[in-house]
Amino acid sequence: MTEHDLVEKLFVADKLAVARAITSVENQDSMHLGLLKAIQKNLGRAYRVGITGPPGAGKSTIVSKLAKHLNDSGSRVAVIAVDPTSPFTGGALLGDRVRMMDLSSREGVFVRSMATRGSLGGLSKTTQLAADVLDAAGFDYVFMETVGVGQSELDIVEAADTTVVVLTPESGDSVQAMKAGLMEIADFFVLNKADRPGVDQSYNAISTVLQLSTRPATAETAKNIWTPFIVKTVASENRGIDDVVKGIKRHHRYLMETEKLFSKRKERVRKIVLDIVGENLQKEFWTQGRLSELETRLDLVLTNKLSAIQLAEELTKE
Amino acid sequence: MTEHDLVEKLFVADKLAVARAITSVENQDSMHLGLLKAIQKNLGRAYRVGITGPPGAGKSTIVSKLAKHLNDSGSRVAVIAVDPTSPFTGGALLGDRVRMMDLSSREGVFVRSMATRGSLGGLSKTTQLAADVLDAAGFDYVFMETVGVGQSELDIVEAADTTVVVLTPESGDSVQAMKAGLMEIADFFVLNKADRPGVDQSYNAISTVLQLSTRPATAETAKNIWTPFIVKTVASENRGIDDVVKGIKRHHRYLMETEKLFSKRKERVRKIVLDIVGENLQKEFWTQGRLSELETRLDLVLTNKLSAIQLAEELTKE
Repeated sequence: MTEHDLVEKLFVADKLAVARAITSVENQDSMHLGLLKAIQKNLGRAYRVGITGPPGAGKSTIVSKLAKHLNDSGSRVAVIAVDPTSPFTGGALLGDRVRMMDLSSREGVFVRSMATRGSLGGLSKTTQLAADVLDAAGFDYVFMETVGVGQSELDIVEAADTTVVVLTPESGDSVQAMKAGLMEIADFFVLNKADRPGVDQSYNAISTVLQLSTRPATAETAKNIWTPFIVKTVASENRGIDDVVKGIKRHHRYLMETEKLFSKRKERVRKIVLDIVGENLQKEFWTQGRLSELETRLDLVLTNKLSAIQLAEELTKE
Repeated sequence: MTEHDLVEKLFVADKLAVARAITSVENQDSMHLGLLKAIQKNLGRAYRVGITGPPGAGKSTIVSKLAKHLNDSGSRVAVIAVDPTSPFTGGALLGDRVRMMDLSSREGVFVRSMATRGSLGGLSKTTQLAADVLDAAGFDYVFMETVGVGQSELDIVEAADTTVVVLTPESGDSVQAMKAGLMEIADFFVLNKADRPGVDQSYNAISTVLQLSTRPATAETAKNIWTPFIVKTVASENRGIDDVVKGIKRHHRYLMETEKLFSKRKERVRKIVLDIVGENLQKEFWTQGRLSELETRLDLVLTNKLSAIQLAEELTKE
């Protein structure tokens, strides 16, 4: 497929073309620059939702139910599931994503797993560019699902328009979430598996933390302040999914009314540009000559004659 | 404290000086370059152990018991607990690290929490440089504990000499570990909470994955191949901790006998140098002029007149 063909087919949301274009961006192949330039004029229509939470919270199930729900009401939905790659299995373990794959046979639904290990360039940058591809292909919603621990993983969902944190009544889940830095990135919470024991304690624990963190609003500031809330679900039985959809739409309206949607997008683009400039600088810098210079002088560091910082400084200055 | 005083006190493992030096490295303050140069001649004696695993697996408990055990037999032990920072609490949540703090009042034990969010420079780089400070201060062991999900967090423990993955018999723990890419970075496993139901199934599940991944060895290669194993513990009752210590020492011997310790360290230093060069290049590049140029042209991207990649290219070339 030529670049021109690919872009044409992408604009009519041909699934094969979409998949191909994301692979191009992921691998930074010869086509990806032209591709990203060509799709630029079509960006900014998709709404991006980040879904995160501890392993086993049911994120994949929730995302597939959300995708189905939104698709049933006429929206086109894409899902990027950011998956740690396991060399043991030769790729991402699909596990509970099988359900999602079923879903992806639907017209208007696209599902993609992205590997985290060994990805070229930053994981966050690659995911955002893949979301751009999906945006240009006309998807109304792009869901980005990551496991909710780890700096790069949090960066991904934080760059979304709406960030949803999924927790369960499992003991310690909310404490672990606080430790993982999840509490402060949530636009709202989903308390999944709400038919399990301990759901009320969990609900109260999250509420308490939320209340502690809410600044008192004056009459003038009140309308500009977003107050995170909690939605209970039993995703496996499809219970509460409509409330999650309502929560996403409510947050979307809030961002539009306060003009925060624009500033969120600006911040996201700024980060991508900074990332790419950083990569470009390094690519230009590490010539064959400098790389072999590095190898030679590494031994000086290992024999304690030179510090790593000194070596880096010397190389930068030469 | 002057830089000279700080280095002198660091070499006699004055705890205040050690803490101060790590803060200096973390904040990249005016002293940190001189400091890292000064300590270079004392590096390479500490043995670095990475401990990781899912939230709630008992990593902190295991690390504190290990530190106590090793310290009781005369070793000096430092712990770096890499902690997600929560703005809600104004810092790292200590939670189950309280035990560790108790331990840190011991002579010859040092405990430090490191924040993951908003750290200057890469988390992995900062942690390795902090470990260098502890190495220079004469600690025999430096433990680096991170929650076992997330690219940056895995990078940290992978850069250690020995990497220990902690799992529990909780349902799905080993499946989640595989998904998180933990199975392939473990030099050995600790199956903690081994008094709980399901321990045999978990043990067998991990064993099976290990066997599937082990390549058959010939007589000549056998001695150079490391075979990961599983140690059962009930860390809260101090059971099995001596076996974990034995596992660490056995892996240490293996790395020395096969000369892999040197190549591991070389790889670690190479990564740090690459990181620092990358930072230096960006620092030099982003002059005030270029930063305001970026702000101006970001609007072109947001109005779809220019792609993020094009903007990055233009800025890099100018």
